[in-house]
Amino acid sequence: MIGIVGGLGPYSGLDITKKIIDETAARSDQEHLPLLLFSCPHLIPDRKAYLLDTSNENPGKAIASVLRKLEIAGATVAAIPSNIVHAEPIFSFIKAEIARTGSTLQLLHIVHETVQFVHENYPDTMVGVISTAGEQLYSLYRAAFIEKGFDVVTPEGTEQEKVNNAIYDAEYGIKAQPVPIANKAREDLLSAMDDLKKKGAQVIILGCAELPLAIPERDHNGMIIIDPNRILARALIRAVAPDKLKPL
Amino acid sequence: MIGIVGGLGPYSGLDITKKIIDETAARSDQEHLPLLLFSCPHLIPDRKAYLLDTSNENPGKAIASVLRKLEIAGATVAAIPSNIVHAEPIFSFIKAEIARTGSTLQLLHIVHETVQFVHENYPDTMVGVISTAGEQLYSLYRAAFIEKGFDVVTPEGTEQEKVNNAIYDAEYGIKAQPVPIANKAREDLLSAMDDLKKKGAQVIILGCAELPLAIPERDHNGMIIIDPNRILARALIRAVAPDKLKPL
Repeated sequence: MIGIVGGLGPYSGLDITKKIIDETAARSDQEHLPLLLFSCPHLIPDRKAYLLDTSNENPGKAIASVLRKLEIAGATVAAIPSNIVHAEPIFSFIKAEIARTGSTLQLLHIVHETVQFVHENYPDTMVGVISTAGEQLYSLYRAAFIEKGFDVVTPEGTEQEKVNNAIYDAEYGIKAQPVPIANKAREDLLSAMDDLKKKGAQVIILGCAELPLAIPERDHNGMIIIDPNRILARALIRAVAPDKLKPL
Repeated sequence: MIGIVGGLGPYSGLDITKKIIDETAARSDQEHLPLLLFSCPHLIPDRKAYLLDTSNENPGKAIASVLRKLEIAGATVAAIPSNIVHAEPIFSFIKAEIARTGSTLQLLHIVHETVQFVHENYPDTMVGVISTAGEQLYSLYRAAFIEKGFDVVTPEGTEQEKVNNAIYDAEYGIKAQPVPIANKAREDLLSAMDDLKKKGAQVIILGCAELPLAIPERDHNGMIIIDPNRILARALIRAVAPDKLKPL
């Protein structure tokens, strides 16, 4: 059974659950995979607050406890649909904590799965990573792609500001107005992607959980667009039932 | 904690989970409600097959077992986002089975919650119920509304055929083509609703889980549209945290 730690935020847990269903080859309800979404947002302290001030409680502790609950309920593989949780000070704590409690749960890593996917399917490409300035600080995408030998570009200056505002602006940002997405948010993100194309990007990584809401397409201006939640969903299916994974 | 029996079908479990998040007043991840979506579609036999031939295994047995798992994991109130599961031969079996195993879980009933909602908010209205011919056979909406003193109208003849085809047609039906919904499916459903308006309907009940995908609006042609999954989501929130229920 697949386990998902939800609530980080709530819509991100929903999004990966939807993508697991979308990417499963099934002709009836019964052919779909067993899965468990455990969402305890009230128990899990703010992730960014911890990274900015590690004297706060490590949110990894509560996340590890949810993972144990998933395992007790029958999950054999699990994932946490949140980029920032995979920053080292949190993720390594989670790994240590579940190991300490004797867990044998297979825990997937959103960044490693995404890098591996691009490495297998689009080797030797130049990778553009789009995310907020805050996420760029903690995101492991850049370092993980470079380690695999990829060249990486990210938005700079006004283009980075456009990305930040597309997510956070109080009027047109995706967080403030998720349904429907404001045209300005979408256009500014496409503009930032076009700018990365000029720098040579062939593959774009949507490095914040909000971005696939505004950019659902799988390619743009000749570049491949990678949605890490979709990759993580596919990796979860492959872990429990590789024969049910839909073709790309 | 809220528990949801998912997988009946998979997108319906997802839909109610989304509506619980949508209808919760929360300014941060941490303010969202704890919830658990347990989806074991492979364990739960076909519901229509059982109603057509009750010599098959009652799917209520497997559903009761999922409810017990939800309760053991911490759920205090639960719901099953599927209309047909609430047909008496299945639902009363589930109630008896969880009572037999000593459960104290509060199990909500999608039809009763919907009828109660309409009774409180739109009393003395004429109710139109839209669903497939198959669902009309087993659906409790008609009987439950009549019992509360409502007048009820349902599509007949070619209008009922339009509803069936909007859901089941191999080319343009919602089941075959959920994203994006075919114009014809949507137009035929609106036409069936307009026909119920001519018969006096003031409130329309979307009596199949697929219908809110094609009819997301909350009113049409002067009629109020009721989405039972949204009502069930609101009832779940009210059961655990009435102060967090968004205004209608």
